[in-house]
Amino acid sequence: MGQVPRTVREAGEFGLIAELAAALPPAARVGPEEGVGIGDDAAVWTPSPGESVVVTTDSLVESVHFRLDWTDWFSLGHKALAVNLSDLAAMGAVPRLATVSLGLRGDEALEDLRAYYRGLGVLAARTGTRIAGGDIVRSPHGLALHVTALGETSGGRLLRRDGAQPGDLVAVSGTLGASAAGMALLAGEGGSGAATADLLVAAHLRPEPRLALGRSLAEAGATAAMDLSDGLFGDLPKILAASAVSARIDLGRLPVAAAVRALFPERWLDFATRGGEDYELLFTVPATRWHEVAAAASAIGSTVTAIGEIVPRGASGPELLVRGLGGEEQVVKEGAFDHFGRGG
Amino acid sequence: MGQVPRTVREAGEFGLIAELAAALPPAARVGPEEGVGIGDDAAVWTPSPGESVVVTTDSLVESVHFRLDWTDWFSLGHKALAVNLSDLAAMGAVPRLATVSLGLRGDEALEDLRAYYRGLGVLAARTGTRIAGGDIVRSPHGLALHVTALGETSGGRLLRRDGAQPGDLVAVSGTLGASAAGMALLAGEGGSGAATADLLVAAHLRPEPRLALGRSLAEAGATAAMDLSDGLFGDLPKILAASAVSARIDLGRLPVAAAVRALFPERWLDFATRGGEDYELLFTVPATRWHEVAAAASAIGSTVTAIGEIVPRGASGPELLVRGLGGEEQVVKEGAFDHFGRGG
Repeated sequence: MGQVPRTVREAGEFGLIAELAAALPPAARVGPEEGVGIGDDAAVWTPSPGESVVVTTDSLVESVHFRLDWTDWFSLGHKALAVNLSDLAAMGAVPRLATVSLGLRGDEALEDLRAYYRGLGVLAARTGTRIAGGDIVRSPHGLALHVTALGETSGGRLLRRDGAQPGDLVAVSGTLGASAAGMALLAGEGGSGAATADLLVAAHLRPEPRLALGRSLAEAGATAAMDLSDGLFGDLPKILAASAVSARIDLGRLPVAAAVRALFPERWLDFATRGGEDYELLFTVPATRWHEVAAAASAIGSTVTAIGEIVPRGASGPELLVRGLGGEEQVVKEGAFDHFGRGG
Repeated sequence: MGQVPRTVREAGEFGLIAELAAALPPAARVGPEEGVGIGDDAAVWTPSPGESVVVTTDSLVESVHFRLDWTDWFSLGHKALAVNLSDLAAMGAVPRLATVSLGLRGDEALEDLRAYYRGLGVLAARTGTRIAGGDIVRSPHGLALHVTALGETSGGRLLRRDGAQPGDLVAVSGTLGASAAGMALLAGEGGSGAATADLLVAAHLRPEPRLALGRSLAEAGATAAMDLSDGLFGDLPKILAASAVSARIDLGRLPVAAAVRALFPERWLDFATRGGEDYELLFTVPATRWHEVAAAASAIGSTVTAIGEIVPRGASGPELLVRGLGGEEQVVKEGAFDHFGRGG
């Protein structure tokens, strides 16, 4: 006693909860007026009248989704929330509340966990999300971080995966491949000397959820959307399967940052199509509405790029038809990315 | 190919999702009319007008919270949902939706995961909870099971932890210590020959969330409630701290099953006060309303037992004053149970 606790085990569960709550900026805390916050059996929140609740959950497992020698704890907190908010963005929803669960060894430094909560909290405050506590458990073999984010529809609108129609354009926000390039840089790979390398690493460690763009797409009449977590070749087939359509895309039209091409001349196309974790939005929109969508995106500082179009599915079901840089065509099947190692 | 997949890795992520969805009873699935279900970025649900949303999350980690040589997978699915529904019960809320996240090694048998989903699904269907998918990730060092349950208030009523007042009675539902006794039996401990041993094991593996009782307590005017997951000495101090009061309880009044006393003559009191995982409700209620509460509980087939009373806090803050079987008094401090090993 008498010493300032430095680890989770020294602080104990109750000390830890108090420390973490204090690390949140006030705007990210649940106030008494909004219901029950950190420390009760559950969190409470009253949605706006007439709106639906949108809920999503994502887990980050140490050595599978992150390495502590590559990320700082603030970035880890940002990312744990960001990947959930990205799912809400893909639905066109407005974030309201998040529960945070920690699976800890027990020997973690309190200061690291405070930094994790600050990373969560800064993004939460900026996006109107309140952090409502959650569950703290022992996880002897490594950190396991879980966030569940709750949002609500805006004007009752919702972007689903199953609304793509033949004749729609296929489009993405931002650029593709930056996150995979950033991870390769963290692994010590790639060319050197680029002043933009830090931006690529930041794209990997602290992805920005495209919340304003998602709401804008829902308003402007996008027919389907999802966020790019598993890479274009992993994710687009999911929209195609849900919508029972095929798509034809042109790799020459993919938006890829010049730094990614320069640092990884052999790998940039693989990063852009299979790298994953870009957390940009992939969406479909009737060709007649493209200019409206692009203008709305521009108005909020986002860029969107049409990369192909939806076509009727063939006899063998939904297919992704890809026109390569040399003009050759290939077919990518659903399941190109599989977390358990099967597929292409 | 041509072989029926037997493991998660053989089925692949997409095959697994389809298998798990099919293992749910229809009443536990999210239908198209209720919004987006398993497979989209997020789940959607529209709460009843005027009600608040109640959200809770709980994690079960292999070798910390369960052992696969002690539980069957059906029971594990039941318990993963039940511990969350128990939190909703403690708030007086009505369950509506649950997201299920799986952290898997990859070599799990598909049939085991189907049984896990059946266990979840049967309890979900019985309690009006829809299973809305979630996240499937790799977890190389052991299973990690996470459920987030969403419910809504009934008539706007909510049971919190911070409403206990001096003069209230302290009460519990059901009996205490059965779950700890069941776990000890699974470990090969305890006396033999009791026909009721199976019931104690079932209390540990498949706890029943007290949902109807929670709503009934909220209607009948209980002032505070929580569910007993960490044992009476671990949980009651949390109500006392939240409500800024003390309590005096009498161990001679604890409801403990005869089988627990008979099989564990030396340990039954420890099981009842510190064993944890009973998932009964611990609540406070003005003494003037006790008969109404007991009658309401009886009407839905529940028993409730008053074990003490709330008293003003002393100079040293909230305290739990315990009168032992021999009449001696002891004081139990907050933090008696700590998941990281501190406290008493």
